[in-house]
Amino acid sequence: MAKQKKTPRPKAETPKGFRDYFGADVTERADMLGKIAGVYHRYGFDALETSAVETVEALGKFLPDVDRPNEGVFAWQDEDEAWMALRYDMTAPLARVYAQHRNDLPSPYRRYTFGPVWRNEKPGPGRFRQFYQCDADTVGTASMAADAEICAMLADALEEVGIQRGDYVVRINNRKVLNGVLETMGLSDEGQRADVLRTIDKFDKVGESGVRELLGKGRLDASGAYIDGVGLEDAQAEPVIAFLTSRADDTSATLANLRSAIGNSEIGAKGVDELSEIAALLDAAGYGPDRIVIDPSVVRGLGYYTGPVYEAELTFEIKDEKGRPRQFGSVAGGGRYDDLVKRFTGQEVPATGVSIGVDRLLAALRMQRGAQAQAQGPVVVTVMDRDRMADYQAMVAELRGAGIRAEVYLGNPKNFGNQLKYADKRGSPVAVIEGGDEKDKGVVQIKDLILGAKIAETASLEEWKDLPSQFEVPRERLVAKVRDILRSQQQDDGGDGHHVHGPGCGC
Amino acid sequence: MAKQKKTPRPKAETPKGFRDYFGADVTERADMLGKIAGVYHRYGFDALETSAVETVEALGKFLPDVDRPNEGVFAWQDEDEAWMALRYDMTAPLARVYAQHRNDLPSPYRRYTFGPVWRNEKPGPGRFRQFYQCDADTVGTASMAADAEICAMLADALEEVGIQRGDYVVRINNRKVLNGVLETMGLSDEGQRADVLRTIDKFDKVGESGVRELLGKGRLDASGAYIDGVGLEDAQAEPVIAFLTSRADDTSATLANLRSAIGNSEIGAKGVDELSEIAALLDAAGYGPDRIVIDPSVVRGLGYYTGPVYEAELTFEIKDEKGRPRQFGSVAGGGRYDDLVKRFTGQEVPATGVSIGVDRLLAALRMQRGAQAQAQGPVVVTVMDRDRMADYQAMVAELRGAGIRAEVYLGNPKNFGNQLKYADKRGSPVAVIEGGDEKDKGVVQIKDLILGAKIAETASLEEWKDLPSQFEVPRERLVAKVRDILRSQQQDDGGDGHHVHGPGCGC
Repeated sequence: MAKQKKTPRPKAETPKGFRDYFGADVTERADMLGKIAGVYHRYGFDALETSAVETVEALGKFLPDVDRPNEGVFAWQDEDEAWMALRYDMTAPLARVYAQHRNDLPSPYRRYTFGPVWRNEKPGPGRFRQFYQCDADTVGTASMAADAEICAMLADALEEVGIQRGDYVVRINNRKVLNGVLETMGLSDEGQRADVLRTIDKFDKVGESGVRELLGKGRLDASGAYIDGVGLEDAQAEPVIAFLTSRADDTSATLANLRSAIGNSEIGAKGVDELSEIAALLDAAGYGPDRIVIDPSVVRGLGYYTGPVYEAELTFEIKDEKGRPRQFGSVAGGGRYDDLVKRFTGQEVPATGVSIGVDRLLAALRMQRGAQAQAQGPVVVTVMDRDRMADYQAMVAELRGAGIRAEVYLGNPKNFGNQLKYADKRGSPVAVIEGGDEKDKGVVQIKDLILGAKIAETASLEEWKDLPSQFEVPRERLVAKVRDILRSQQQDDGGDGHHVHGPGCGC
Repeated sequence: MAKQKKTPRPKAETPKGFRDYFGADVTERADMLGKIAGVYHRYGFDALETSAVETVEALGKFLPDVDRPNEGVFAWQDEDEAWMALRYDMTAPLARVYAQHRNDLPSPYRRYTFGPVWRNEKPGPGRFRQFYQCDADTVGTASMAADAEICAMLADALEEVGIQRGDYVVRINNRKVLNGVLETMGLSDEGQRADVLRTIDKFDKVGESGVRELLGKGRLDASGAYIDGVGLEDAQAEPVIAFLTSRADDTSATLANLRSAIGNSEIGAKGVDELSEIAALLDAAGYGPDRIVIDPSVVRGLGYYTGPVYEAELTFEIKDEKGRPRQFGSVAGGGRYDDLVKRFTGQEVPATGVSIGVDRLLAALRMQRGAQAQAQGPVVVTVMDRDRMADYQAMVAELRGAGIRAEVYLGNPKNFGNQLKYADKRGSPVAVIEGGDEKDKGVVQIKDLILGAKIAETASLEEWKDLPSQFEVPRERLVAKVRDILRSQQQDDGGDGHHVHGPGCGC
């Protein structure tokens, strides 16, 4: 025998931080995104799918002034030595597209997009280096109607995918109001302003009294460590507290509170005007505070955006990892930003947009549905006689013709137990059996696997046939009987995790 | 003024060979893939979405024995120096997934997948470095029922997306039959066998007489160059010719011709048996030769696959670039291959699968529909009075509630001509106008833009209002009238490219 150099076998693994999506993980996400896209389309937003790869130059944040610009992005050099990278979000590509095609695009340009983005970060539990984003932005208008529209569209999208009214709220704040507050406080020191911003960001966690302490002398945190404060006097800190706690029972009271928090600041007044314009538009369109509210305690993104800031929160209760009840929390966020295209063209172009956290929203929908997953395996037609494959294929064709998902077992049919194990692994609701006896009598056996699953793995064929969950019907009643069983299974939604949930089982 | 270092502005461009997809290019593809996925799901195939990034080791063809393994793929090194790359097809990731999860996956494992793949190749006109693939494979069974099923599923999928029966055909051949032919010829020389295979690959182009010449002494090609032949005697070449031309009027005659072409070869007989098993299964399932045929002239892929090979062709006529009629041609291909997982596990796992050329199929659907694109821009509600934005938003909300795509103009409303230009760029079918006069009278103006588009860019507002394509209706009849106009536009399908087709116009 000739000697052959042995190369070690490659490892069958994704790179670290990457993962695969099986069955319902793919289809449920696609279904959800399709519904969102339908709403966005109806609002006049156009689909856009940019290339996954951009020049590092266009991505911008990561300039090739180092040997390898791989901080945060996956980047490599083309043959002509130009650096390319995978997109890390959907906003940088939008800026590039708008700058590149601005003469052909309508102005304002409303676009939505969804797809994977990539981050070259240290992977961790639940933290992946590829994940989905779903964005909608309006580029080229400073009108508050654009911000109001996106908030209304976001509410509509949440309801479209199945979040009930009352189980979510879109909250709106404005960066300019905060700027007005800072102006009123007379903070001239840049470092102190930054400290105040950082403190405001902690409002979600530490609440009013915590922020008060952190703006003043400091605070003992939960771990017992002492956190130094910004060092403001109580009176000086007051406008920040007034701002954060200005939400009242109705919008006009909230706006009045904000007006007093910003004192004589011009920029602050502009911010309150913007909020009241948005509130009026939403009110006229019938989006009341049960769906969308002006809420100055929204602090996420205040540092990044330049005007209105908005966030969608799911308000229904879930249990945290320790079993304590808490609200599900944020599933989308966005706001107004003005420097989108400037890097490319030198021109300032106002823009506003929202990004939905695809994985979080999908997780929320699954929690609401409960353990019972929507997706179902196919009806499996077993093979009792290898030579009658054509008969079995005729059965699945009939079932599919009636809109029922169905397949013939295509493994080695010798061991019937393997066929049942296969059906179990597939999450099949129903198995169909037609052996020689049945063929002679003109009947088929139809097995309700949801009822019979508990003992399926141990029973012999004969025991299995005797179970009450198995029905003998004339061959021509195959489709009708299968449909009956599927219907009764759907009515009985007391799912109890009866079958093995493997990555391929479609559950 | 402080000096500021000027950095040159980045170019707003995709990297070479990449492109963006706008509007209908995105939604029509998504719609087509959704329909195909629906058929595949009904056949019991499970969705799979692998990560876009694989280890170079797992991709296999591109081993990191060179400094930079970038031949054909986009690859880069992770921090820990491991090479990663973007997937170049869907089969290599399937092999990795099957090897990685084989204990959890059902066996056989039917899966479908679609998404972008990336090739590090020289871009050219119409040749991109990122494009879509849509694959379905069955892994873990040698049964011909799996191949038959995929051919039937492919036919169903083509009809589902809108290809009429009679406008396509799925053709099936078998590599083993060809192996039998080569055995019968007694070709022992490896080089000569390879030459014969290469010649067979040219059958599509040069036909029977061309193959005959190329197997013998050689041939003058169209450019006048003389191509050396393989150098076989006429009698020796005969089995190849018999194989390639064995398609007869009906399947049994074709199979008889093949049996005579392969002489006493055992492997050849196995191949003919496989084809006749597939033919019998498809016949029993009602897929006649109007949809699926055994056709030994299918040669693409014969070199790569190990058993059945299949191809879907669209048979309707189109004009080539010189205006000559020709068939649209191939839109999908596949076959059986057995070494899928062996690289990882050492075990041979039989598999068969098909790949649809997503861009080609989408192009075919568009040609069939004709110039008139399906997608339509939104109804545009113009802004005559900036302070009544809430009224205009109420209009679009009503329209959307009736399922009509609609938006308010959000640019600067001062210049009404700009609003009309915008509507034109959006491909809007209808514009709505409500100025102060209309408001006082309780009416709105509704403009049929398809009728009126030709002069829209030059007319003044007053001229424009006088056109017969404009209607004044009571405010409460807004939705009803818009719906009427949209309906009449759809009935009148004599589209004449009336508006500017920009990347964002949604056409």
